[in-house]
Amino acid sequence: MNSVKIFSPGTVANLVCGFDVLGLALNDPCDVMMLRRTSTPGLVIKNLDDFGLPEDPVKNVAGVSLLSLMAALPEPIGLEMTIDKKIKPGSGIGSSAASAAGSVAAANILLGNVFTKTELVQFAMNGEKLASGVKHADNIAPCLLGGVTLIRSIYPLDIVPIKPPPLFVTIVHPQIEVKTSDARQILKKQILLKDAIRQWGNIAGLVAGLMNGDYELISRSLEDVIIEPVRSILIPAFDQVKKRSLDAGALGGGISGSGPSIFMLSINEKIARSVEHEMADVYHHAGIPYSTYVTTINNEGVKIVTDDILQPQ
Amino acid sequence: MNSVKIFSPGTVANLVCGFDVLGLALNDPCDVMMLRRTSTPGLVIKNLDDFGLPEDPVKNVAGVSLLSLMAALPEPIGLEMTIDKKIKPGSGIGSSAASAAGSVAAANILLGNVFTKTELVQFAMNGEKLASGVKHADNIAPCLLGGVTLIRSIYPLDIVPIKPPPLFVTIVHPQIEVKTSDARQILKKQILLKDAIRQWGNIAGLVAGLMNGDYELISRSLEDVIIEPVRSILIPAFDQVKKRSLDAGALGGGISGSGPSIFMLSINEKIARSVEHEMADVYHHAGIPYSTYVTTINNEGVKIVTDDILQPQ
Repeated sequence: MNSVKIFSPGTVANLVCGFDVLGLALNDPCDVMMLRRTSTPGLVIKNLDDFGLPEDPVKNVAGVSLLSLMAALPEPIGLEMTIDKKIKPGSGIGSSAASAAGSVAAANILLGNVFTKTELVQFAMNGEKLASGVKHADNIAPCLLGGVTLIRSIYPLDIVPIKPPPLFVTIVHPQIEVKTSDARQILKKQILLKDAIRQWGNIAGLVAGLMNGDYELISRSLEDVIIEPVRSILIPAFDQVKKRSLDAGALGGGISGSGPSIFMLSINEKIARSVEHEMADVYHHAGIPYSTYVTTINNEGVKIVTDDILQPQ
Repeated sequence: MNSVKIFSPGTVANLVCGFDVLGLALNDPCDVMMLRRTSTPGLVIKNLDDFGLPEDPVKNVAGVSLLSLMAALPEPIGLEMTIDKKIKPGSGIGSSAASAAGSVAAANILLGNVFTKTELVQFAMNGEKLASGVKHADNIAPCLLGGVTLIRSIYPLDIVPIKPPPLFVTIVHPQIEVKTSDARQILKKQILLKDAIRQWGNIAGLVAGLMNGDYELISRSLEDVIIEPVRSILIPAFDQVKKRSLDAGALGGGISGSGPSIFMLSINEKIARSVEHEMADVYHHAGIPYSTYVTTINNEGVKIVTDDILQPQ
C-alpha cells in the first residue's frame, strides 16, 4: 500500500468530571488526511484547508508526530501528508489531536501496522505538546481507539477503553478564541480535598454509568466542581447554554476540552436536536457567531476512507 | 417475627484510591447481633462482648442508629438489641458501621422491610456520626449492600453498587490505637490539582477494573498519592508490610479505612495466605501484637443467621 486516506475524528476531552483523563470520539466533525509514500526520504506536509497552519513539518502538529514515528523506524522513508482540516483549530474539540493521531495512524496503516496503539499515542503526544505545551493524551487516545477512553496514567502510559452505551452528542462552538495554554493557566494549582473527593466520586459514577448503560447515573455524575467554575468564565453565556440544554432534556455536559466549545450528551436524536436549537438560540441572541454539530460517539476512532492504492512515484 | 439474629460484616473503606467514597464488605470478621421486639416501648442495648462499649442507647452507635429508625415509625415500639461484637472497635475495619448498619438492618427485617436500603443507610449514618464525628457512608453502604459500593454523593445520598470479581482479602490489625478523628485531622485541607488528577485516574481505573474483572488494571489502579503518604506514618511498619505483601503477589492494598489495619487484595487463597504470613512476620519481629484475617468479599451484606422465632413476651 502506497497511500491511504483516513478520517480522523474530533474528540471531547475531560467529559466534565474527568479533567485530563477522560475523552470520547465523535463521528462528526472529522479531518480528512491523505498519506502517500514517496521515493525521497523525508516528510512533506500540504494543507488543503485555509486555516493557515504551518507546512514546515517541525512546526506542524501532524509533522512533529510523524517525525517522531519516522525516527522509530529502522531506516529513513519518504512521506507526503495532505491535510484537509474540518475541525477548526482552537475549537476545543480536538483539532490538534486529530492531526497528531490521524497522521501516525495513517502511517501505521501504510507501514503494515508495525506499531501498537500505545506506541501511536506516544508519537502523537509529541504533536500535542507542540500545540498546547503539554504532553497529554485525553484527546489522542479516543481519536485513535474510539469510544470513551480513560488515561489512568501518563507516566507510564495506561489507556483504559470504556465502552459507552449509545449517546448523542450536541456541540456548539462559539467563534471566540480560548487558548489551551490560557485555559490551563487560570486553574489553581491547589484545590480543596473535599472538592477532589466530590470529583472522584463523580468520575467513578460516570465510569460505572457508562459501563452499565445507566443513563440516570451518567446524568448525575456529569458534575464538575473544580475546573468548570473557573474555566466557564472564559466562555460567554456558558451558564445559560448549560441550563437551557438541561431543560431541553440533555443528560449533562460542559466545556469540551479547554473550550470554547460546549458539549451535551442526550439519549436520543430528538433531544440532541432540541439542545442544538437552544444552544443556537443563545448565541444568536448574544450576537456571537457559532457553529453546531449533532452527532454520535465514534466507536472505531481513525478510519480508512477508501483503500485506493496509487502507483508509486 | 419477634426476633432476629444477624451477622453484620466488617468492611474496608477507601480502597486506596477511593478515599471517602469506596468500600467493600468482608465475610470475616462479622458482629453477631440479636434484635427482639419487647412489649415496653423504648430501646434496651446489651453487650455480650467485653469491649466496654456504652449500653445507654444515646451513647451507643447501634442505639443511635436504631433510635433514628424508630423516630421514623408511626408509633413507638419496644426493642432489645444484644450485641456480640467480633470486630474490634478502632481496628479500621468498620466496627462502628457494623453496629450502625446491622442494627437498622435487623430492625427492618423485624418490621417487614418497611424501609429501603437508602433509608437504612441514612439511619445508620447517625450512628457513624456518633463514632467519628462525621456522617459518612463508605463503611455503612457495603455493610448493608455487600460487594463494593461507591458513595457518589452524600448530599443527596447516591449509592452505586459495583460488582467485583472474586477476590481474597488479607487483613492485619496491629494492636495500636489510631482514632478516626486524629487520622482525619492530619490530612491537609488543600491538595495539588496534579495529585487529584492522578487520584481520579486511579479511581476510574479501579472501577473499570472491578467491573471488567481485569485484575491487572485493579492492581495498577490501587495507588493513593494523597491520603496514604500522610496517614501511613501513623501505622508502624506500614511501608514494610506493603512491600512484602506486593512481593508475595498481592494485587495491591493499603490502609483499611483510617487504620491501623492494612488490607491487601489477592487473586487466590494461596497468595492471600502468603501475604498473611509476611504481614504476621513483620509485626512479630517488630514486637507489636497483631491479628490477621484471610477472607473473601461478602456480596450480600448483613445476613440473617437463623430464623428462630421466639415467643412474644
